Amino acid sequence: MIKHPAFTVEPWSLRETRLDLDVLAQTESLFALSNGHIGLRANLDEGEPFGIPGTYLNSFYELRPLPNAEAGYGFPETGQTVVNVTNGKILRLLVDDEPFDVRYGRLLAHERLLDLRDGVLRRSVRWISPAGAGIRLESTRLVSLTQRAVAAVLYQIEPLAQPVRVVVQSELVANEPGSQQEPDPRAAVTLDAPLESVEFHHHDARVALVHATRQSKLLMAAGIDHVIDGPTDTQLQSESAPDLGRVTITAQLAAGQRLRVVKFLGYGWSSQRSRPAVRDQVDAALTAARHTGWSELARAQRAYLDRFWNRADVEIDGDAELQQAVRVALFHTLQASARAEERAIPAKGLTGTGYDGHTFWDTERFVLPVLTYTVPTAAADALRWRHATLDLARGRAQQLGRRGAAFPWRTIRGQESSGYWPAGTAAFHINADIADAVSRYQAAADDRRFEREIGLELLVETARLWGSLGHRDTDGRFRIDGVTGPDEYSAIADNNLYTNLIARRNLRAAAAAVERHPRLAATFQADLAEAAEWRDAADNMLIPWDEKLAVHPQSEGFTDHERWDFENTSPEQYPLLLHFPYFDLYRKQVVKQADLVLALHWCGESFTDEEKAADFAYYEALTVRDSSLSACTQAVMAAELGHLQLAHDYFAEAALMDLHDLQHNTRDGLHIASLAGAWIVAVCGFGGMRDHNGHLTFNPHLPARLTRLSFRLLFRGRRLKVDVTDTHATYTLLDGAPLEIRHHGNPVTISRDGPRTVANAPLPARAAPTQPPGRPPLNRCLEAGPSRPARAA
Amino acid sequence: MIKHPAFTVEPWSLRETRLDLDVLAQTESLFALSNGHIGLRANLDEGEPFGIPGTYLNSFYELRPLPNAEAGYGFPETGQTVVNVTNGKILRLLVDDEPFDVRYGRLLAHERLLDLRDGVLRRSVRWISPAGAGIRLESTRLVSLTQRAVAAVLYQIEPLAQPVRVVVQSELVANEPGSQQEPDPRAAVTLDAPLESVEFHHHDARVALVHATRQSKLLMAAGIDHVIDGPTDTQLQSESAPDLGRVTITAQLAAGQRLRVVKFLGYGWSSQRSRPAVRDQVDAALTAARHTGWSELARAQRAYLDRFWNRADVEIDGDAELQQAVRVALFHTLQASARAEERAIPAKGLTGTGYDGHTFWDTERFVLPVLTYTVPTAAADALRWRHATLDLARGRAQQLGRRGAAFPWRTIRGQESSGYWPAGTAAFHINADIADAVSRYQAAADDRRFEREIGLELLVETARLWGSLGHRDTDGRFRIDGVTGPDEYSAIADNNLYTNLIARRNLRAAAAAVERHPRLAATFQADLAEAAEWRDAADNMLIPWDEKLAVHPQSEGFTDHERWDFENTSPEQYPLLLHFPYFDLYRKQVVKQADLVLALHWCGESFTDEEKAADFAYYEALTVRDSSLSACTQAVMAAELGHLQLAHDYFAEAALMDLHDLQHNTRDGLHIASLAGAWIVAVCGFGGMRDHNGHLTFNPHLPARLTRLSFRLLFRGRRLKVDVTDTHATYTLLDGAPLEIRHHGNPVTISRDGPRTVANAPLPARAAPTQPPGRPPLNRCLEAGPSRPARAA
Repeated sequence: MIKHPAFTVEPWSLRETRLDLDVLAQTESLFALSNGHIGLRANLDEGEPFGIPGTYLNSFYELRPLPNAEAGYGFPETGQTVVNVTNGKILRLLVDDEPFDVRYGRLLAHERLLDLRDGVLRRSVRWISPAGAGIRLESTRLVSLTQRAVAAVLYQIEPLAQPVRVVVQSELVANEPGSQQEPDPRAAVTLDAPLESVEFHHHDARVALVHATRQSKLLMAAGIDHVIDGPTDTQLQSESAPDLGRVTITAQLAAGQRLRVVKFLGYGWSSQRSRPAVRDQVDAALTAARHTGWSELARAQRAYLDRFWNRADVEIDGDAELQQAVRVALFHTLQASARAEERAIPAKGLTGTGYDGHTFWDTERFVLPVLTYTVPTAAADALRWRHATLDLARGRAQQLGRRGAAFPWRTIRGQESSGYWPAGTAAFHINADIADAVSRYQAAADDRRFEREIGLELLVETARLWGSLGHRDTDGRFRIDGVTGPDEYSAIADNNLYTNLIARRNLRAAAAAVERHPRLAATFQADLAEAAEWRDAADNMLIPWDEKLAVHPQSEGFTDHERWDFENTSPEQYPLLLHFPYFDLYRKQVVKQADLVLALHWCGESFTDEEKAADFAYYEALTVRDSSLSACTQAVMAAELGHLQLAHDYFAEAALMDLHDLQHNTRDGLHIASLAGAWIVAVCGFGGMRDHNGHLTFNPHLPARLTRLSFRLLFRGRRLKVDVTDTHATYTLLDGAPLEIRHHGNPVTISRDGPRTVANAPLPARAAPTQPPGRPPLNRCLEAGPSRPARAA
Repeated sequence: MIKHPAFTVEPWSLRETRLDLDVLAQTESLFALSNGHIGLRANLDEGEPFGIPGTYLNSFYELRPLPNAEAGYGFPETGQTVVNVTNGKILRLLVDDEPFDVRYGRLLAHERLLDLRDGVLRRSVRWISPAGAGIRLESTRLVSLTQRAVAAVLYQIEPLAQPVRVVVQSELVANEPGSQQEPDPRAAVTLDAPLESVEFHHHDARVALVHATRQSKLLMAAGIDHVIDGPTDTQLQSESAPDLGRVTITAQLAAGQRLRVVKFLGYGWSSQRSRPAVRDQVDAALTAARHTGWSELARAQRAYLDRFWNRADVEIDGDAELQQAVRVALFHTLQASARAEERAIPAKGLTGTGYDGHTFWDTERFVLPVLTYTVPTAAADALRWRHATLDLARGRAQQLGRRGAAFPWRTIRGQESSGYWPAGTAAFHINADIADAVSRYQAAADDRRFEREIGLELLVETARLWGSLGHRDTDGRFRIDGVTGPDEYSAIADNNLYTNLIARRNLRAAAAAVERHPRLAATFQADLAEAAEWRDAADNMLIPWDEKLAVHPQSEGFTDHERWDFENTSPEQYPLLLHFPYFDLYRKQVVKQADLVLALHWCGESFTDEEKAADFAYYEALTVRDSSLSACTQAVMAAELGHLQLAHDYFAEAALMDLHDLQHNTRDGLHIASLAGAWIVAVCGFGGMRDHNGHLTFNPHLPARLTRLSFRLLFRGRRLKVDVTDTHATYTLLDGAPLEIRHHGNPVTISRDGPRTVANAPLPARAAPTQPPGRPPLNRCLEAGPSRPARAA
């Protein structure tokens, strides 16, 4: 946990004003830069000290064995794990032959600033070496959002007072040693030297290394090039070796003189292209970057982000820390996905090796809804990636004795890499989550080409899975037995309500798609008869209900189980999974993360308001939020049900997940889905936005402390802006044709003629729900002020 | 599968009349000798060819890591696996410098005979070497039932016609190479050279090797000594090395001359005693054996077995193969347990490395009932071993957040070694199985000292486990959620009926024991208040019932699940666990082994006859018998319900499990529990014996083909004999005070005054149940005759 970060609260940046080595790994994640293709952890330029060194390429992985003490049919035997690739960030510095290292000498000043509009990480340091030589160092790092294969560093040194001789070793390092591995199942396997040298070369200020992974046989190239501006006697030499490329720049700097190095990094990889092709691709990227130049790269970065914020910004008045956190969250969500381009969006983005760099259902469930309304091309790309893995998913379904497609619970490239099937393969809901993301994207982007090329087939193959997973019982009800829902403290249960509802939607969406495209569907052997079967299954879907308690059980039988003994569970025993066996968690009423409440949000049309209120209160008392994928959903439902203060508290928890290291593992990378969830809370929670049937509806309400909320959306070719105050909402159409939305159930048509302001409806008063002892979220009104409070571990 | 074994059908032995190398490994298991302490697979004397070389010492194991692709709290990280210890069986033979090897030269005759009354394995060979030298070889091997640390071989060679020079290398070999490992989860891990030499020495005809395991740090010693009788110029020399001890005997044999070697083997091991102590123990055992001499060892062996058969024999007229099979089964059950003496009785006995040499619940559920009525001291010893591991079981319960004791699902020495918790740790019923074995033994043996020393504490600690595993729901019912019952094609279900019934009995037995021994119970902090809680839990135990189908669901919700698609499952897809994922097996109605039907047998007092008939018919149609722990129970209930032909068929399947290699893994060792089950079918099935409340009841019935069944029993100090014909049963008290039993519900008092003959009651006619397509047992009337039929694989 970041106990006392030196973060200041400001609207458009994340700023660290002093260096705390105890939380270095966490800040490496928070300040990480990525464009979805290349990811650079915010390791210090000079490489050391580090928390976890990290440079990642989307979908570049190594294989690893998945051992099983007792084997079983269909257990994956090979897993995939993200590789820390060749590190091109390193700029070692010698000051009068003394290595610049913040752990030695005197660090007079340290600041790092992630600029959310410029899209760069700035670092500013004043340091005096043990021998007394002083320097000022300024570096600016970016991973280009406009040139996908390129990152760059502007690195500038000047003496503080006395002249200094400086040597800059700008390096490419492969197989760098990492940190010790943690015995936490959520962390990654550390690979020892996964890269084998294939080729290395250097000329002028350019060096390139080509490597291949030992097992997965992926080829990658990394190159660096430099533009140097220094005193006239500045010298340069370059060299290369299998795991090291180095350009050494030497300069004697008088007071007032400055050495300015622009370092361009180029990365490329392939599983199919030849070594020369991959090498040349990186050379070309470097040449292009050098041609563009630092200033233009930086300008294009700013322009890209200006466009992004212009359609995606969320403004919050009344809680400055939350304003900052939401923008940091949106920035990282963008970074994880912007240029992923038909690759997976991992749970940690490209900010760390947590969960082995795998992608899970969270991408479709939490990240894609945000992208759908803010960066729709990225949402489409992510689903195009799923589509590209359909053959693997069909193969997996066949292996499991099912029809259609069974997408992997966790993977990098599409193969199931889950080593524990009750909380992996059995969580079939991921398939309906993918289908739901397809439907939402298609409706919100009105992308008919996507539907024909991608959407229809994904819907059909996932619907087939559900058709073959469920069965009609003697009462005719369609049951889906023995599967695992979103809550990871339950497993292998019958008729998980979230799963059944989202599968029902999947079945109906597929049926509708086949009816819209009968000829195209025929190419997948789908016809109206099959569509009718899906509708029939959907119409008879079993929805469990506890008559006595008048609540929905999360799964059949859930409400009969013993309640977890929260009273005798101590704070140190959370997260429970690290202190109690699965067998005991599974058989008791204790919820790791929103499951039934997730259904209340995303399938809200299937519940009455009374059911929602009763269900929310019931599950609120059981939910411990040991997962980061919970607070945002609880916030949305708390807001809908009028528990606005609670919604505010959960909002803060979701948005501050990593800024406050609430799960104690931000060191391993950011929780991209929780960060995306911050947007979801703002828009779906306080904005009350729903898109259940392709029609936008809003039910805005603000908690006491927030005085204004404003957010923007893309929807079917329009750009909207919604401003919410305590009493009114104002809907503005920024671009596009007139649109009818609903505000508290009443139609409102907005057009370019001007904003429409309408009054918010009152909310019914409901008793405040309670959480398990010790597990309520931090009260944002009692404890938070303009600056962040200190928090206990 | 043994397709064409050369076994002849005879009542008191198992005889092989020709050597088939394809089934060598299976015969090594079937002809294995053991006394429960030492186990020798029936490897050929000369060591090669072999299927799986094997020499085992009860509870002598090595540690191995239990890897988990995804770790979890409480997952065991270290497992235990049986070690193939120093092999003292080897007697290599050179005939005129040509090694005797059945694969070369000409094997004129081969016979092996397991003599069930003498308790020896005899081998008789006539062989001509490739060079034309002919010999006759006779060997007789025994593992002494009277001298626990001793085995012996009588080895005799004579020339067939021409004189031959023979060299016998009598060896001790440590770390002998084994066979290739199979990719079957039911097989064992093969350890590569697990023994480290500690000491070796030789003098005269004696050699000893002392070794320790690398990880588990157990110490073992093996020694051999010889008594040689040959021509006057017979020479002898001995030698020893770290992994080899050898006594070489050279003789020139003229026609009519004979070399006779008696080889004594001594074994000892310890986790605590010193190297000299273990070494000396083996030396002493050898000296004692030599002092006893071969003839007396053999005589004592016969006398031991005469006593055994005198109280345990089962006679069957009308199915000679089954008569043989039942005696082979009883013999191996005895061998697995006779001298185990406070060590575990492994699932495979000491006949192979299957299941890593682990003991499971089958010992208490299937083997101890047999021992209780035939070798009660062995039953008591097995439970004393459980008691000796109570501290480990209490520690495991604590780790799992439970009170009392949680015994391991699989183990050698008491630590949980299960690598897959849904089918391991979650199968808590093992604790009640242990308690049930305690209660049964106490009642049948009337062993009050055992109750005070062992039984009370075992009952109390297991009852505590149940008290803390279950909870009272809002209706007051005591629920046991999220556990796994006996059927391994279901897991982690609520209120498994077998579990709930057997746990209820556990709770009541513990309460009664505490009430009988309040002062002693106080030393375990148990009192009448706690006993009242157990009674309360027991009285409110939830018994699931499907109103619509009018059958008991195996667990709550089971009967709502989809029926397995038996029609589209091909014969090659059995056993299902090797061809379908657990997730699919668990969520469907398909039963690997008797589960609810097991409850019908052992907790029959909890069901009406109508319920039994309906339940049996329902589960019969779902049970595929992919486990060897099923046929015997189905036989018992088939017999009770009047399906006598079906009972006969299942009887044969249980008894012939290994003789016909029905599970295709007899090579890895015998299925001791299924063999014990053969006795259970005879006595509880056709004899209709029950012992539900400490009172013996009988309901005898014979299937058409059997003309007579006779069995013997020990019960509360008496020895009984029961003879059953088609129409009558005769009860004879062989020893002890008069006893009242019940025959078809009517009291019958038997005394030494003479036998009592009573008429059998008619059975109600019931429709024959059906099995899944392709899964009925082989019809014993249609297909079996006096000689065994050939069977398809």
